[in-house]
Amino acid sequence: MASGIRPGVAVHRVATTGPDDVAGLERLVRAGDLDPAGIVAILGKTEGNGCVNDFSRGFATQSLKLFLQGHVGREAAGRVCLVMSGGTEGALSPHWIVFERRESDEPAHGPALAMGSAITPDLPPEHLGRRAQVEMVARGVADAMERAGIADPAEVHFVQIKCPLLTAARVAEAEARGSATATRDTLKSMGLSRGASALGVAAALGELAIGEIPDDAIGTDMGLWSGRASTSAGIELMGHEILVLGMSPDWTGPLAIDHGVMRDAADIGPVRAALARLGLGASGQLDAPARARVRAVLAKAEASRTGNVRGLRHTMLDDSDISATRHARAFVAGVLAGTVGMTDLFVSGGAEHQGPDGGGPVAIIAERG
Amino acid sequence: MASGIRPGVAVHRVATTGPDDVAGLERLVRAGDLDPAGIVAILGKTEGNGCVNDFSRGFATQSLKLFLQGHVGREAAGRVCLVMSGGTEGALSPHWIVFERRESDEPAHGPALAMGSAITPDLPPEHLGRRAQVEMVARGVADAMERAGIADPAEVHFVQIKCPLLTAARVAEAEARGSATATRDTLKSMGLSRGASALGVAAALGELAIGEIPDDAIGTDMGLWSGRASTSAGIELMGHEILVLGMSPDWTGPLAIDHGVMRDAADIGPVRAALARLGLGASGQLDAPARARVRAVLAKAEASRTGNVRGLRHTMLDDSDISATRHARAFVAGVLAGTVGMTDLFVSGGAEHQGPDGGGPVAIIAERG
Amino acid sequence: MASGIRPGVAVHRVATTGPDDVAGLERLVRAGDLDPAGIVAILGKTEGNGCVNDFSRGFATQSLKLFLQGHVGREAAGRVCLVMSGGTEGALSPHWIVFERRESDEPAHGPALAMGSAITPDLPPEHLGRRAQVEMVARGVADAMERAGIADPAEVHFVQIKCPLLTAARVAEAEARGSATATRDTLKSMGLSRGASALGVAAALGELAIGEIPDDAIGTDMGLWSGRASTSAGIELMGHEILVLGMSPDWTGPLAIDHGVMRDAADIGPVRAALARLGLGASGQLDAPARARVRAVLAKAEASRTGNVRGLRHTMLDDSDISATRHARAFVAGVLAGTVGMTDLFVSGGAEHQGPDGGGPVAIIAERG
Amino acid sequence: MASGIRPGVAVHRVATTGPDDVAGLERLVRAGDLDPAGIVAILGKTEGNGCVNDFSRGFATQSLKLFLQGHVGREAAGRVCLVMSGGTEGALSPHWIVFERRESDEPAHGPALAMGSAITPDLPPEHLGRRAQVEMVARGVADAMERAGIADPAEVHFVQIKCPLLTAARVAEAEARGSATATRDTLKSMGLSRGASALGVAAALGELAIGEIPDDAIGTDMGLWSGRASTSAGIELMGHEILVLGMSPDWTGPLAIDHGVMRDAADIGPVRAALARLGLGASGQLDAPARARVRAVLAKAEASRTGNVRGLRHTMLDDSDISATRHARAFVAGVLAGTVGMTDLFVSGGAEHQGPDGGGPVAIIAERG
Repeated sequence: MASGIRPGVAVHRVATTGPDDVAGLERLVRAGDLDPAGIVAILGKTEGNGCVNDFSRGFATQSLKLFLQGHVGREAAGRVCLVMSGGTEGALSPHWIVFERRESDEPAHGPALAMGSAITPDLPPEHLGRRAQVEMVARGVADAMERAGIADPAEVHFVQIKCPLLTAARVAEAEARGSATATRDTLKSMGLSRGASALGVAAALGELAIGEIPDDAIGTDMGLWSGRASTSAGIELMGHEILVLGMSPDWTGPLAIDHGVMRDAADIGPVRAALARLGLGASGQLDAPARARVRAVLAKAEASRTGNVRGLRHTMLDDSDISATRHARAFVAGVLAGTVGMTDLFVSGGAEHQGPDGGGPVAIIAERG
Repeated sequence: MASGIRPGVAVHRVATTGPDDVAGLERLVRAGDLDPAGIVAILGKTEGNGCVNDFSRGFATQSLKLFLQGHVGREAAGRVCLVMSGGTEGALSPHWIVFERRESDEPAHGPALAMGSAITPDLPPEHLGRRAQVEMVARGVADAMERAGIADPAEVHFVQIKCPLLTAARVAEAEARGSATATRDTLKSMGLSRGASALGVAAALGELAIGEIPDDAIGTDMGLWSGRASTSAGIELMGHEILVLGMSPDWTGPLAIDHGVMRDAADIGPVRAALARLGLGASGQLDAPARARVRAVLAKAEASRTGNVRGLRHTMLDDSDISATRHARAFVAGVLAGTVGMTDLFVSGGAEHQGPDGGGPVAIIAERG
Repeated sequence: MASGIRPGVAVHRVATTGPDDVAGLERLVRAGDLDPAGIVAILGKTEGNGCVNDFSRGFATQSLKLFLQGHVGREAAGRVCLVMSGGTEGALSPHWIVFERRESDEPAHGPALAMGSAITPDLPPEHLGRRAQVEMVARGVADAMERAGIADPAEVHFVQIKCPLLTAARVAEAEARGSATATRDTLKSMGLSRGASALGVAAALGELAIGEIPDDAIGTDMGLWSGRASTSAGIELMGHEILVLGMSPDWTGPLAIDHGVMRDAADIGPVRAALARLGLGASGQLDAPARARVRAVLAKAEASRTGNVRGLRHTMLDDSDISATRHARAFVAGVLAGTVGMTDLFVSGGAEHQGPDGGGPVAIIAERG
Repeated sequence: MASGIRPGVAVHRVATTGPDDVAGLERLVRAGDLDPAGIVAILGKTEGNGCVNDFSRGFATQSLKLFLQGHVGREAAGRVCLVMSGGTEGALSPHWIVFERRESDEPAHGPALAMGSAITPDLPPEHLGRRAQVEMVARGVADAMERAGIADPAEVHFVQIKCPLLTAARVAEAEARGSATATRDTLKSMGLSRGASALGVAAALGELAIGEIPDDAIGTDMGLWSGRASTSAGIELMGHEILVLGMSPDWTGPLAIDHGVMRDAADIGPVRAALARLGLGASGQLDAPARARVRAVLAKAEASRTGNVRGLRHTMLDDSDISATRHARAFVAGVLAGTVGMTDLFVSGGAEHQGPDGGGPVAIIAERG
């Protein structure tokens, strides 16, 4: 890039009135605050059930594509990474988080929020949930890190991945070639894909050595995890869409990112520590000026498989009326809201190998003080 | 009472494996730590849905009665106040809280946790949800305060009330006498009864003047509320069971109680302040020694009727798959757990006139430092 | 119309793989079996929860509009009546029902299935749920009957109406003009709108005299009802989209329609009678050849407000985990499936004033034998 | 037994107002219509969710035990077989079905309804879900058949079994002895236990040869099934409670039983055929006199694993908000109600190896004409 011109990330958090509500995005565009051509990714916390039959995600994706196509045309719109996470339980407020790349001749004042994306090739169905997927994702994360100008894995704070899943058709296609898939069940394939993708992040960031990740550990050995992965399975692609967020001296702008890993559903300590490193330390809840500096909170939530939190029984896995991931999102949202004082938090479920069992990574993007 | 002998309250928080699990209570009795004859009240956080068709409450009540009858006989067992609150959403852990009265010749070291109970006469069905119920409850609270040795309403920190509801039969009986009830709908009668009982607490404690509580404000004017009431409707009685908890110089023992009022679902500030007054102030989450001093956390949760929390839309009232009270309990449990680090919290729903809309009272019982 | 050329209705029932699946429609168009320019209405049984937060409906509507616009352009697409009904409980199978108008020079062989549509002007918000809405709908039904060439109301067998609802904004707009709406609650407004629309059908078809329908009967007097209305509230318009289906000697084609009214959730008798009149009588379930002649089954289902079916208690209204309309659809779908042997049935909820309490109209479109 | 004295079965179907409502049973006893000492089994259709966290079952069991103990003492009460099936979806009406044995000197008029019960020894945890369980149940069914005086397996029409499940403790106990259980998961163990028990019935009745039932077919090969088993897992015993119902020339009384097997969720044909054999044939729904002769309808319902019913997609297995078994019960209840005209039907879920995939056995007990 031309000397003196540095890339930077603008992060826009926009409330929605429904999964198809792009009015807030249109307003930003009309006001000149958001250049549609600079949009790299849009995350959406949509208000469906976040589980199998959640149509808020597809509705949102379709609506965002129409929005993007209207501004930048079909081809460019197709390059934007769209990750919809369903489930706004508790007081969670539905919203978009738009990641926009800007060019600036502002000199850098030390590392700034940086982002890089990558799309892997299609994953052969028989590789899903297996080491080959871990390796493919690890390569994709490395590519994205490069584009983000992040050399040191320790400076990566959050990797959002949209990964594929198996449909009956994809399973059949593999079997027709004589290859057996890891599972035939779509729902199980989503968990395996999320888990393998998370382990790919761990491998790329040096959190785990590839040798530590045999096929049969995937979905099974919850002692293996990444503290910075957030993965989400979707039907649209057979490849992976990867968004790396971290700090780079080559980028400029007022934003920074840090992260912590909750060790259980109530473990706010690591989150407070991350806030402190961002200059947002407080005893108790963030006050209004501090909240105004927060651009995004991204977290994974899950119900611990042990059936306990700190030795006390929880009922999330035994509730036939409400899915465990819905319970977990509502509760963890409350834990985070108690400290940050906000409800438009990007809390998602499906946390296989993302943080320890029952816990999960939390990343915070904020304006430096 | 004899000079030198003072009453005191022991509070036992006991984990359960199911709504009928009294094994933990039996263990305490066998170990000599709990005298069944001293049991004044048992609160239960049971794992049903906490809404209309929650059978965990009736199952628990029946099981507790069998437990009590086995030790103290039918008549004495009938005098114990049993309040079951359903709904252990999020990581909430099912448990009993047993309030046991003890006599002690320990000299008082300043005010200690005190409790008093009262049972009102049966409420005529046509008084439910109306001023007459408010007045009846106010009288009952005053009686219970006297038995608790609490003269100053400011020293009352939590009033738990089990109030009646209307069945078709009770409605018909009133109509046969020419009196119309406030509603014919059981579910609505529960809300009106909870609300009127909460306003009765407010009147008794001087939070509101009786004149400020006309019939048509009940269930309607959410600007009227008590910061210390927790009410729960049940079918068993047409009277009210009232348990007053506060501080009295006439009582002895190591426990103290304080309270705060959450102004919205994420308002942890008043809870932190109450903890500080109890000598449990901390920046961040209570550590293990501090947690060990906490005997009970009692809170009300609800989904704000405005549809917003701090100006951001929530979806709790629009979720046809999950009742708003379930969402609210899960979220507020998380908010509290983030600060106290515990999941066996007595978080209940149905917070009409208990705290401001979307908020609710929170009481903490702890060992003084 | 030119002599010898008669209109006719083709009815296409198309399975879907999801709310946005228009592939089946595209296949019909490519095969020349469906002319997009002739599409008058598309009903969709979509797989959301059919209650407030059902995004399958909006997703389906958006997808159908894209499909239509791609073939006939925006303006013509906007004239197609789209009615999405959510909820495919039990074994109900998601599907579209496309009503296509064709011209034919085939001579008429007696009356044939006829359809007519109308769109009313916008309904002032303060008229919703009141007599003025009943009257507006009655006029609209009369217009649609005329376009259907149906002079005798007794020949109308099913009137599908999409009616408006109140949003906070619409309520505020009316109040700003000094007019109070019937309710402020969106969900309640949907029920009142459906009910008033159904009563408008009853008035137009002579089932009730307008004088029998005072404002305060709407939503209250369940003894007033139409045996041929199916109404559905949506946010898109403030007017009503009306589709009348019946028999007319002016129309041609192989299809006929008849209807019955279930008096309770298990009342299959009237349905069997309607099948018999269509030449599909059978003892027991329709066999495969008979099923192949059925083009559509359209029914309303609800949970009787009495809490009973034939004197026996049901639990649909007391289930805090599953909405009563979901229960009712699943059950009535089974009752109908037992007789017709099909699961792609258009069973919808929200049956205020549509059939007696707990029952509902059922219409069948079939090929004449 | 003494000559001339024959056993007979009285079947009492009693409506309930809740899971703990034994008032109807007390009324029958007071009226002399039911001798508590003759009660062999009580089936309960209770109104919980019928899945893991259904407390209506335990509440009902405890309440029935108190009722029985009050009349016949603890020991005799412990011998009554209690099978609670949760889930009264759709219009299903909660009820008890009491099987009472009577002695009569009435001469036999041909075969009459006969019943026999058996309790197997405790099943070692490591046998659950394996051939050894199938064999144990087959022996138990044979014993019960003998007590029922039924020599010909073809005369057995319904076998109700309560079977054990695995808890963490039982799994651990087996592992401590060096034996691995078929699963560690309680929910999975319930399905395996139900399935193995159903296959035990199939073996005992000659529907399958024991050699056709290898370990790995259990829970997997849905082509293996019994057309007369209804199994239900519970935590109370590690043995099996078995109730055999059929026809025996040695028994007397006005009742008869027959059965059919639904091949899919809408397959009413076999049910109509069974009704016809009982002299209750009708075109369409049973009329009131016919309904009055029906004492019980006992059915199993499930959502076909293929995801289809008659080639059309169902959404029961993909609904994260409502368990598939709840959907299936509601729908099949409707299918049956359309023919029998009743809603107090004993429709239960968990139909592994009970009827073909997506179908299930249906038994009808009725007064002979």
